[in-house]
Amino acid sequence: MDEKIDVNALFLGPKAENYLFFREMLAFLMDDHAEWRRHFHPDDNPVVTPEDQGRREFLATLQKTREALIELAGNLQLCSTPWFSPRYLGHMATDTLIAANLGYMLTILYNPNNCAYEGSPATTALEIEVGRQLAKLMGYDPQKAWGHITSGGTVANYEGLWLARNLKSIPLAIRSVMPELVARLDAWQLLNLPTGAILDLVDRAKEAGRFDEVRRHSVRGAGMRDKGLGKVLVPQSKHYSWTKAVDIFGIGQENLVSVPVGDDYRMDVAALKTIIDGLIAERIPILAVVAVVGTTEEGSVDELHEIVRLRDRYEDRGVCFYLHVDAAYGGYARSLFLDGEDRFLGFTEVSRQHSRQGILHDDTEWLTVDVYEAFKAMPEADSITVDPHKLGYTPYAAGAIVAKDRRIIELISYFAAYVFEATDDNPMLLGSYIMEGSKAGAAVAAVWMAHRVVPLNITGYGRLIGASIEGAYRFYRSLLADPPLALDGRSFEVIPLARPDLNIVDYAFHEQGNPSLEAMNRLNQALYEQCSYKSGPLYVNDFITSKTALTRQEYGETPRSYGGKFGIDPAEWERLGSISVLRSCILTPYLTRAACFADYWRTFRGAMERAIRRIGPPA
Amino acid sequence: MDEKIDVNALFLGPKAENYLFFREMLAFLMDDHAEWRRHFHPDDNPVVTPEDQGRREFLATLQKTREALIELAGNLQLCSTPWFSPRYLGHMATDTLIAANLGYMLTILYNPNNCAYEGSPATTALEIEVGRQLAKLMGYDPQKAWGHITSGGTVANYEGLWLARNLKSIPLAIRSVMPELVARLDAWQLLNLPTGAILDLVDRAKEAGRFDEVRRHSVRGAGMRDKGLGKVLVPQSKHYSWTKAVDIFGIGQENLVSVPVGDDYRMDVAALKTIIDGLIAERIPILAVVAVVGTTEEGSVDELHEIVRLRDRYEDRGVCFYLHVDAAYGGYARSLFLDGEDRFLGFTEVSRQHSRQGILHDDTEWLTVDVYEAFKAMPEADSITVDPHKLGYTPYAAGAIVAKDRRIIELISYFAAYVFEATDDNPMLLGSYIMEGSKAGAAVAAVWMAHRVVPLNITGYGRLIGASIEGAYRFYRSLLADPPLALDGRSFEVIPLARPDLNIVDYAFHEQGNPSLEAMNRLNQALYEQCSYKSGPLYVNDFITSKTALTRQEYGETPRSYGGKFGIDPAEWERLGSISVLRSCILTPYLTRAACFADYWRTFRGAMERAIRRIGPPA
Repeated sequence: MDEKIDVNALFLGPKAENYLFFREMLAFLMDDHAEWRRHFHPDDNPVVTPEDQGRREFLATLQKTREALIELAGNLQLCSTPWFSPRYLGHMATDTLIAANLGYMLTILYNPNNCAYEGSPATTALEIEVGRQLAKLMGYDPQKAWGHITSGGTVANYEGLWLARNLKSIPLAIRSVMPELVARLDAWQLLNLPTGAILDLVDRAKEAGRFDEVRRHSVRGAGMRDKGLGKVLVPQSKHYSWTKAVDIFGIGQENLVSVPVGDDYRMDVAALKTIIDGLIAERIPILAVVAVVGTTEEGSVDELHEIVRLRDRYEDRGVCFYLHVDAAYGGYARSLFLDGEDRFLGFTEVSRQHSRQGILHDDTEWLTVDVYEAFKAMPEADSITVDPHKLGYTPYAAGAIVAKDRRIIELISYFAAYVFEATDDNPMLLGSYIMEGSKAGAAVAAVWMAHRVVPLNITGYGRLIGASIEGAYRFYRSLLADPPLALDGRSFEVIPLARPDLNIVDYAFHEQGNPSLEAMNRLNQALYEQCSYKSGPLYVNDFITSKTALTRQEYGETPRSYGGKFGIDPAEWERLGSISVLRSCILTPYLTRAACFADYWRTFRGAMERAIRRIGPPA
Repeated sequence: MDEKIDVNALFLGPKAENYLFFREMLAFLMDDHAEWRRHFHPDDNPVVTPEDQGRREFLATLQKTREALIELAGNLQLCSTPWFSPRYLGHMATDTLIAANLGYMLTILYNPNNCAYEGSPATTALEIEVGRQLAKLMGYDPQKAWGHITSGGTVANYEGLWLARNLKSIPLAIRSVMPELVARLDAWQLLNLPTGAILDLVDRAKEAGRFDEVRRHSVRGAGMRDKGLGKVLVPQSKHYSWTKAVDIFGIGQENLVSVPVGDDYRMDVAALKTIIDGLIAERIPILAVVAVVGTTEEGSVDELHEIVRLRDRYEDRGVCFYLHVDAAYGGYARSLFLDGEDRFLGFTEVSRQHSRQGILHDDTEWLTVDVYEAFKAMPEADSITVDPHKLGYTPYAAGAIVAKDRRIIELISYFAAYVFEATDDNPMLLGSYIMEGSKAGAAVAAVWMAHRVVPLNITGYGRLIGASIEGAYRFYRSLLADPPLALDGRSFEVIPLARPDLNIVDYAFHEQGNPSLEAMNRLNQALYEQCSYKSGPLYVNDFITSKTALTRQEYGETPRSYGGKFGIDPAEWERLGSISVLRSCILTPYLTRAACFADYWRTFRGAMERAIRRIGPPA
C-alpha cells in the first residue's frame, strides 16, 4: 500500500511556502533538458555561434523577448485571479499540484504531439497509462475499457454523445447490410438494443468483413436523417456543453429533454421515469440519458444507482438507452471510496478509513448513502467524463473520457496516411480514435505526474479531496450556525441552498424582514460585484467568490422553495423567475485546521460586512 | 516599422546555445510569481509552516515528487523526438520559440481558464488581441472579423464547418418564421444565398426580436433532417479532420466530395468546376467548398484565387457556397507578403523586399504567381483555419479560426449561468461563441508572446518562415542535383515529388533499373524505418524523417505519373495503387548558411547510404 501523501507538500502554497523546492526542481529539469540537446550527436557544431550572439540584432531580439515577458508578467499579476489563496472561494479552481506544473513545464521543451505515436513516443504511452488509471478509478476493467485525455470536459462530453449517436445508428445499418443478423427485429427494437448487443453485432460484421459497409450505412456515412435517433435526456442541472452538443451532432436542441431536479438539485428520478414512459407511449426512442456526478453549479450528485436500476428495468422491457455520466467535476472524488489497493470500500468501511486515516474528521456529516451508492454505481455507465483540471488539481487544459467497452471506439475511428498507416503495427494510434487531432503531450505528462505523486485512492486524491470537503463542510456549518450580520440596525441572514454532496456551497444573503426577491437579488448581485473582478483589481480584494442564477428557464419551479426559506413572497418568484446566489467551490485543502479556518472565516465575515456597508441601504 | 528580428535569437537552439538567456529569464519569472503570491494580503499567515515542512510525511511527499520528475525526465529523454536538430526533417515540428515557451511556462502558474473572462481576466484580453492579429494577417478587417484560439487545427476546421452548416440552414428557418423576408425565393434559392445576404437576414430577424425563434427552426434547433444541406467539397489532399467533421456534424461522409488534385497536388480547379456543374444539374446544393493552403502531406497551396473567381461567377448565377480555407499549415506564411506596416505587397515588391532584407537569397526559385495570388486571395474566404503550433512555432496545443464577418458567431453561440450572465456587460464571453469550453489561457499567452516578439509580417514571421523555405529549397535543389548514390555496384536515384509551394519536400529513392513499384515501396518504407523511432531510440539516429503514402484511395490516379518518373511499369501502379515516399517538413530555420547546410546534407546522404547498406539487396 502506498504511503499517504502529505497535502501540505503538494502545492506551491498561498505564500509560496514550497517555492524553494519548486525552484530547485525546475532548475534541475531545465539543465537536464539543455544537456539532452547538447549530447545529441556531440560532434555536431553549434549552429548559433558566440559571434552571432554578439550581434546588435541578436541582442535586440533578446531584449524584445525580455520586454515582452515583463509585459506579460505584469499583465498576469495585475489581473489574474489569486486561485492559490483561501480567500478565493469561487469557481472550480485553486492552486495546482507542483508535480503537475513541473511535469507540464518540462514537457513543453520536448513538445510532443499526442495525435500520433511518432510525434510523442514518450507521452503517448503516458496517455494510455493515464487512460487506464482513470478507467480503474471509475471501476471499469482497465483491460476492457478505454480512456484518454481531451482538451476539457466539454470535448469529453461531445465524444460521449458521438459514441452514443453512432452506436444507436448501427442496428439500422446492420439491417441494410446484413439483414440476416437482425431478421426478427422491427425498427423500434433495432433502436432499443443494449450497448453490449450492438457491439456484438459489430463484431459479427467485422468477422464477415463488412464492418466498413455497415459504418457507411450508419449515421457516420449517411448523416442524420428522417426522424433522427431519439431524445437525449439530461437533468436541468446539466452543463451547457450538452446544449451545444446536440446542435453539433445534428441531433437538434428540440431533442434535448431537461429532466427536473429536486430541492437537492439532483435529477428527480421519478420525473425521469415519467418522461421515459411518455416517450415510450409515443414510440419515440431514447438515444441517451446523461447523469451528472457533481453539477457545476451546486456540486450535486445524481442518484446514479437509481438511474441504473431504472435502466436495467427498462432494458428488461425492451427499451434501451446509452448511459453517460458527466463526472467532469466529481469524478476524482471516487478516490475517497477506494482503499490503498484500489478496492471499492463498503459503506461503513469508508467512514472507518476516513476517520482512522484522518481524511475527514467527521465524515458522518458528509457521506450519505445516496452519494455512496451513486459513486459505487459509476462502472454501470457506458462512458464517463472526468476532468483532471478540476478535482485532479492539474493545470488547464485536461479533460478525459473513459468508456466501459473499448470496442465502441471503432464507431468513431479514422485513419490518415501521414499520421498512421495500416502497415504499422503500432498499437497506439491515438488520433484515430478521438475527436481532436494535435494535442499537447505536456498536458498528459502533467496528469501522469499528478497520478504518480497522488494515488487515485484514499492514500492520495482521497486525502486531498477529503480536505476540500472538510473545508466545505466547515464553511457550510458556519453559514448555518453563525448569527446574522448586524449592521447599523439592519440584520442580514445567510442560508445555504442545499447540503453539499461534494465541496460546492451555494448561499444567499438576505436582509431580515425584506419580502422582495428583487431586493434580495440586488443584494447578492452587489455582494458578488464587491467580491469579484468587477470591483477592481482582484489583488486588493479581501474575498473573492462566484455567483450563479437559479432561473425558471433552467430549473423550472425548483428554486421557489429556496426563496421560501427567506420568507420571500411566492408572487415575487412568479414575477422574476430567478434567484441570485453566491457560489463557493471550496477546492482549497487548507481549511481543515481550526485556526486557519477561523482566520479565513473572519476574513469572509469581515468582507461581507464591509461589502454590505459599501452597498448601502436599498434605494 | 518594427526592427527585423534575428532568427538566431529566437530558439533555445540545437545545442542549447541560448540556454543562459532562457534560464535567466525563467528564474526571473518564477521568482516574480512567488513574490506575487507572498504579497497578496501580506498580513495573511503562511498556511504551511516550517514545522509542517520538517515532518516525515512532508519530506516523503517531496521525495516522491522528485522521483516522479526524474522518471518523467528520463522517459522524455529516452524516447522524445529531437525536433530541435536539423537532423530532424520529418513532421511539421522543430524547435519552438523561447518567448512562447516561457510565456506558456509562466502562465501555467497563474492557470487562467479562457472559457470565461472571470477565470482569465488577463488572458481573455490576450486571446481577443491574438484573434485580431490573426484576422489581420489573413487580410480581414480586424474590426469586422472574429478570431480565437482552439486546441488545434482539427477543432478549428470543425468550427468552420459548424458555422457553414448552421448558416446554410438559416434561410429555410427564416421561411418558417418570417416568410415575408424571403417571399419570392424557392427552396433552391434559399439554399443558395451568399453568406452576406444570410447574415443580413439574421440582422432583420434580430431587429424583429425573432432571432431565437429562427435559430430554433434552423439545424441547431431541429437537427439535420430530410435531404440535408448539400455537399461539402474538399480536395483529395485534405486533412482527415474533414472526414471526421462530416460525421460529427451529422452531414455524413457520403456528402463529402473529394475534388481531384493535379501533379502539383493542388486542387484541380477545372475538376472542381465539373463537380459543381454536375451537382447543379442534379439540383444538389453545395454546403461548402474547402481549399487548402499548405497540404499536410505536400505543403501544396491550392489556387485559391481561381476558386474565388469560380465562386463569384457561380454566385452571379445564383449558386452559392460557403468558402473555408484550411490554412492550418500555411497560414502564417502570409507574413511573407506583408510589409512592416502589414500592407500586402505587390508581386515584384515581394521579391525586392525578400532580397533586400535578406529573407530569401533567391526568391525567384520559390515564389510563383500562383502561390502569390493564392495568399493574396485569402481574405475572400468566409473563414480560415491557421495553427500557431505549426508555422507559428509555438508549443502544442494552439490552433485558431478566423471568420471574416463576426456576425456569423451568433449562429453557434450559447450561454450558461455560471460562466456568463445576460446582466453582465462584459464583451468577452468567449466560451459562448466557440466549440470548446475550458481552455488554457497559458496556450494563448504563448501565442501572444510569439506575436509580440515576432511580428506577423516580413520583419518577423516572414524572416523565420523565409529561412525555412530557403532551407527547403536547398534541400530540394540538392535532391535534384546530386548524383545517384553508388553503393556496391548498385545505384540509387532520388526524385522529389513536386516543386514545393512552401517548405515540405516529398521524395523517394529508387534503385536505377528496377521496374518494380513493390520493390521501390519496400526500399522507401525500409529507409523510413531506419530513420524513425522504428529503428530504436531516436537519440542515436543519424537522421530522422517521416513518410507518407500516395494511395489511389486518397489521390485517384494522380500518383501514377510520379511512378513514371522512375520508369516504374504502369501496370505496377494499377496493381498496388500506392507509392511510399519520404516526407521532410523543413521548419528548421538553420539551413540557410551554406556551411551549415553542407554539414547536414552530408549527414543526410551518409545516413541514406548507411541505411541502404543495412537494408541490403532485395530478397
